[in-house]
Amino acid sequence: MKDVQGERDFRNIPINRVGVRNVYYPILVVAPSSAEGENVCREQSTVASVSMSVLLPHEFRGTHMSRFIETLEKCHGRISLATLPSIARGLRDRLDAPEAALRFDFPYFIRKSAPVSKNESFMRYEVSLEASSRGDCSSGEDFDMIIGVGVPVQTLCPCSREIAEHGAHNQRALISLRIRCAVQGGGTSAGGGAEGARLSAASGPIWFEELIRMAEDSASAPLFTLLKREDEKFVTERAYENPKFVEDVVRDLTLRLNAEPRITWYAVSVVSSESIHNHDAFAEIVRDKR
Amino acid sequence: MKDVQGERDFRNIPINRVGVRNVYYPILVVAPSSAEGENVCREQSTVASVSMSVLLPHEFRGTHMSRFIETLEKCHGRISLATLPSIARGLRDRLDAPEAALRFDFPYFIRKSAPVSKNESFMRYEVSLEASSRGDCSSGEDFDMIIGVGVPVQTLCPCSREIAEHGAHNQRALISLRIRCAVQGGGTSAGGGAEGARLSAASGPIWFEELIRMAEDSASAPLFTLLKREDEKFVTERAYENPKFVEDVVRDLTLRLNAEPRITWYAVSVVSSESIHNHDAFAEIVRDKR
Amino acid sequence: MKDVQGERDFRNIPINRVGVRNVYYPILVVAPSSAEGENVCREQSTVASVSMSVLLPHEFRGTHMSRFIETLEKCHGRISLATLPSIARGLRDRLDAPEAALRFDFPYFIRKSAPVSKNESFMRYEVSLEASSRGDCSSGEDFDMIIGVGVPVQTLCPCSREIAEHGAHNQRALISLRIRCAVQGGGTSAGGGAEGARLSAASGPIWFEELIRMAEDSASAPLFTLLKREDEKFVTERAYENPKFVEDVVRDLTLRLNAEPRITWYAVSVVSSESIHNHDAFAEIVRDKR
Amino acid sequence: MKDVQGERDFRNIPINRVGVRNVYYPILVVAPSSAEGENVCREQSTVASVSMSVLLPHEFRGTHMSRFIETLEKCHGRISLATLPSIARGLRDRLDAPEAALRFDFPYFIRKSAPVSKNESFMRYEVSLEASSRGDCSSGEDFDMIIGVGVPVQTLCPCSREIAEHGAHNQRALISLRIRCAVQGGGTSAGGGAEGARLSAASGPIWFEELIRMAEDSASAPLFTLLKREDEKFVTERAYENPKFVEDVVRDLTLRLNAEPRITWYAVSVVSSESIHNHDAFAEIVRDKR
Repeated sequence: MKDVQGERDFRNIPINRVGVRNVYYPILVVAPSSAEGENVCREQSTVASVSMSVLLPHEFRGTHMSRFIETLEKCHGRISLATLPSIARGLRDRLDAPEAALRFDFPYFIRKSAPVSKNESFMRYEVSLEASSRGDCSSGEDFDMIIGVGVPVQTLCPCSREIAEHGAHNQRALISLRIRCAVQGGGTSAGGGAEGARLSAASGPIWFEELIRMAEDSASAPLFTLLKREDEKFVTERAYENPKFVEDVVRDLTLRLNAEPRITWYAVSVVSSESIHNHDAFAEIVRDKR
Repeated sequence: MKDVQGERDFRNIPINRVGVRNVYYPILVVAPSSAEGENVCREQSTVASVSMSVLLPHEFRGTHMSRFIETLEKCHGRISLATLPSIARGLRDRLDAPEAALRFDFPYFIRKSAPVSKNESFMRYEVSLEASSRGDCSSGEDFDMIIGVGVPVQTLCPCSREIAEHGAHNQRALISLRIRCAVQGGGTSAGGGAEGARLSAASGPIWFEELIRMAEDSASAPLFTLLKREDEKFVTERAYENPKFVEDVVRDLTLRLNAEPRITWYAVSVVSSESIHNHDAFAEIVRDKR
Repeated sequence: MKDVQGERDFRNIPINRVGVRNVYYPILVVAPSSAEGENVCREQSTVASVSMSVLLPHEFRGTHMSRFIETLEKCHGRISLATLPSIARGLRDRLDAPEAALRFDFPYFIRKSAPVSKNESFMRYEVSLEASSRGDCSSGEDFDMIIGVGVPVQTLCPCSREIAEHGAHNQRALISLRIRCAVQGGGTSAGGGAEGARLSAASGPIWFEELIRMAEDSASAPLFTLLKREDEKFVTERAYENPKFVEDVVRDLTLRLNAEPRITWYAVSVVSSESIHNHDAFAEIVRDKR
Repeated sequence: MKDVQGERDFRNIPINRVGVRNVYYPILVVAPSSAEGENVCREQSTVASVSMSVLLPHEFRGTHMSRFIETLEKCHGRISLATLPSIARGLRDRLDAPEAALRFDFPYFIRKSAPVSKNESFMRYEVSLEASSRGDCSSGEDFDMIIGVGVPVQTLCPCSREIAEHGAHNQRALISLRIRCAVQGGGTSAGGGAEGARLSAASGPIWFEELIRMAEDSASAPLFTLLKREDEKFVTERAYENPKFVEDVVRDLTLRLNAEPRITWYAVSVVSSESIHNHDAFAEIVRDKR
C-alpha cells in the first residue's frame, strides 16, 4: 500500500509540532529512588492523558501517527524521570525527527493524615511530566524536562478579615506550578543513567510530594479529603490566622522556589474561586533563574 | 435523490428521542409582560445551546435533522414563554411526530447593585427553558414547560463556625432549581395565547429573576460581580451571621417553593465546593406538589 | 465539641439525597469470577470519581459528611459487583439512613488487537457502577445496581453514502449504555454472597467487556488506539459497508439488549459529532423489560 | 477602612500578572468600518468571558480587583479594535500599573448559506480578542493586539482514501488561529484613533470573517448548521475530492497567512477528532514574520 504520509512535500514549510493528543493510557508512576522524604510514594498506578509530537521537516508530507502509539507501548506504561528521556529519544528515532516532545497529565494520590485526628485518606493532585529531546548525530542531544503539580488549597482574604467584625471570606484555590530542575534523572535502577550519576543524597531530583508541600505551605491552609470535627476546627483556625491574597500565595511560593538551588526555572499561577464573586482572582509569576 | 431517512423500518422499535444537540444560536429572551417585579429584564440578547428532539415512530428509519434547524430559524431567535409552545408544536408538525421536546440553555444577566455602595454591574446566571408537546388530532395537545436557573451563592459552614475560635470556612456553591408552574404562558403580545388568558396581575407566570431571588435568599449570602470594601464587609458579615449547610440551603429554598402556589413541581440541588476539601458536598430535593 | 449536624430539625422536610461528589479515589476493579469471555480483565487499577449519598430524614439537621469518606476507606478501593452491595449497606449503617446510593465513574481499559495486523494497544472506555440500598430491620433490604459503559465508535451516514458519488461523511460518536441485570453479584470470592449463589456458568453477571462488545457491534465500526495501514484500510471499508444513522445504531443495540434475558432494564443514547455540522445528532431509548 | 491591598510589600517580588478571570459579560462586538467584505457583521450582541490583569510592582501588597470590573463597566460592553486600546490603557491608569492585559473570548455568529440550496442559518465560531498596553510617561505606550478564531472544519484522510476501496474516514477538526496584524485599530468612529489613521481602503484591518474564511478554505470542507440533501451531497463530495491530513491543513493555511502582508505574526493549530481513533491528531505552526 502506498505511503501517502511519506510523500515528498513541496510547500517548503516545516511544522513545529505534529502528533497525537488525548491518548489515555494506564501508567505506573515510579519515583526516583533518591527522592527525599519518607512519605514519597515509590510506585503508583494511575491513568494518564498523553500528548506526543515531533517537528516535521519541510520535505515530508506527513508524520506516521501509529508510531507514537507504538513508542508508548514500548515503555510498558512505566513512567519515571529515568524513562522519560528514553521515551522522548525513542520518539525521535522512530519518527526520524530532529525534535520530539511528550507530556503526561495524570491524577496523583498522596496518603494524607488529618492534622489532629491523624485519620488517613487519599488526596488527589493533577500533575504532569513534560519532556523534549532535540539534536542530531553531530551536535548531541539537548534534553529538557518539566515537572508540574496542580495543588488545590484554601485562601482566606486578608482584606475581608481586616474589615469584617467576624469571619472572613475564604475559598478553594488552585496553585499550578511547573519547574525545571538542575538535577534531573532517575536512579530508579542501579545506575540511573547519565543523569542519575549526578545525584547525591543531599541533592536528589525534585518529585511531586516536595513540590506539593511547597505549594500547600504557601497557602492559607491545605485541603484534606477526610476531616473529623477536631480537624475541621484546626483547619478553620489555621486559615483564619493565615490570611492570604492570591498575590501573597504566589509570592510566598516564589520565595521558596528562589531558595531552592535545584530549581532553575519555574512558572506558578494561583487561581482563587472567590466565594463572594462568580469569577476568579489570579496571579502568575514566571522566572528563569539561570 | 433518495430519501433514506424516510425508508420503512422493520425493526419495530420506536425511539424515545431523536434530534440535534449543542446547536448554538443567538437569541433574544423576552420576559412575560406580566412578570412581576420592577427589576425584570424585558428583553435580553444572549447565546443559547439548543437541544431539539422528537419521538420517532417504529415505522420510520430516521428523522430529518435539517428540519429541526429550519424550525429554529422560523422563530427568529425570539424566545419567551409565549413562543416556546409554538416552537414545540412547530417541531411536531414539521417532523410529523407524536411528541417533540426542546431545551434552551443560556447565560442570563441581571443588573445588580452592591449592597452598600450601590455600584452596579452584571451578574451571570446559567438558566434554561424546556418545553415539550405531545398529542394528536383526536386527543388534543399535552404541553409541558420547565423553567430552570443556576444560581451561584455562598455557603458558610455552621459546624466550622460553632467549633472554631475565629472564622468559619465558606465557599462558592451552586443552586440548581427547575420548576413547573401552574400559570404558564407569555402575554408578550396582546393576547398571549391560550395560556396568557389565564394570567392575572396578582399571579403572573414565574420568571428567572423571581427564582433567582428565592435561591439567593436561601443561601448564606448572594454573590456580586462588583464589590467595594464597604460591600465586602457587608457580605462577609452577612454570611457569618447566616451559616448554612447544603442541607439548610436546600430546605430553606424548599420552604419558599412549597409556599408558592403557582409552583406545582420542583427539583432543587445545592452543590458546595467545600473550601477545606477537594470534593463537593451536595443535597437534592424533588417534589411534585400536585 | 458540639454536633451541629446532629441537631433536631423542625422544618419537617426530608432530603432525597445528601452527600459528597467528585471524590477522586484510586480503585482496583475486580471482574466477577463468572464473567464470561476469555478477554475479561480480571483486575485493573484505575482512578474513580465517586459520589455517595443518603436520604436524610426530616428530623436531622445534617448528615455527617466525613463518614462517607470513612466508608470508602473501609473498602480499600476494591470495587466489584460483590463489594458494591456491602459498601452501599455500609453507608446506610454508618450514616443511620433509610436509603444510601453511590456511584463510581472511571476510565476502564481493554487490551485490543488491530483487525488485520493484530497489533495490540489499550483502548479507554468511561464506565460506571451505581448501587443503592434501602430498607430497615422489618422490611429487609432493597438493593439495586446499574452498570454503565461509554463506548466511542464510528458512524457513517447512509444518506450521505447514498447520494454522494464518492465517499460518505462519518465521525466519532459516543454510545452511552446503562443496564440493570437480573443476575447481579459477584463471585469474586468463593461464595460470592447471596447474589453469587444465584449464578450459573451459563448465565453469569454481565460485565463491561460484554456491554462494550454489544455497543461496538451496533456501530458502523469500532475505534482502535493503534492501527497500521492495513488496519486503517479494513476499518475504513467496514464503516463504508456498514452505514448507520444514530437511529440505526440505537435500534441495533436495542435488538441486542432485548435478546439478552439477563438484562431487565436499559437506557441507551448515541451522540454523533457530525463531521458536516458543528452540532451533534442523537437518539435515545429507555426500556424496562420487566 | 484599612486598604490592606495598598500596604507596602517587602518580599521584593513583582508579579507578572494579577487580575480577574472568567468574568462573563454581555458585549456588543463592533466590526471596523473599514473591514472588507460585504458579509461582515457590523454589530453583534454576544456574551464574553473576560480576563483582565496588570503587572504588580514589587512594592505593593495587592492589586484592587474591583477596579477591573469598574473599567469593564466603563466601556459599556462595546468591544471593537478601536475600544480595546482604550480599555487596556484604562486598566493601566486605573490600577496605576506599568502593564495591563485583557482578553475577551466569545461565540461569534456568521450567517451562512448552504452551498447548493442557499438556505441560511447561523454558524458559531469561538473567537477572541487580546490586547495589552505597557509603558510610562517617558517611554510612551507599547500596545499589542491579537485576534483569534476557532474554526470547526472537516478533514478527510488522504491515506484512508488512497488505500480503501470505497470511502475514506473523515471527521470534525478544529482550526485555532491567532494573528497579529500590522494594521490595527478600528475606525468605528470618525477618527478611529492613532491606529485608525494608518488605515486605507485597500488595506484595512483584518476581522473575524476574513480569518474564518482563510481557515475554512484550508480544510477538506467547511461545516454548516443547515444542509438539505443536495447540500449534503455537495459537501460530502467536496471533502472526498479534497483529502487533507492535519499537516496539509496547517500548511495550506500557513501559505495563505504568509501571503497576507498585513499579518506579521501567527500561531495556528489543527486538532482532528479522528473518527477511527479515540484520540486526536494535531499539528501546530507558530511564526513571526517580522
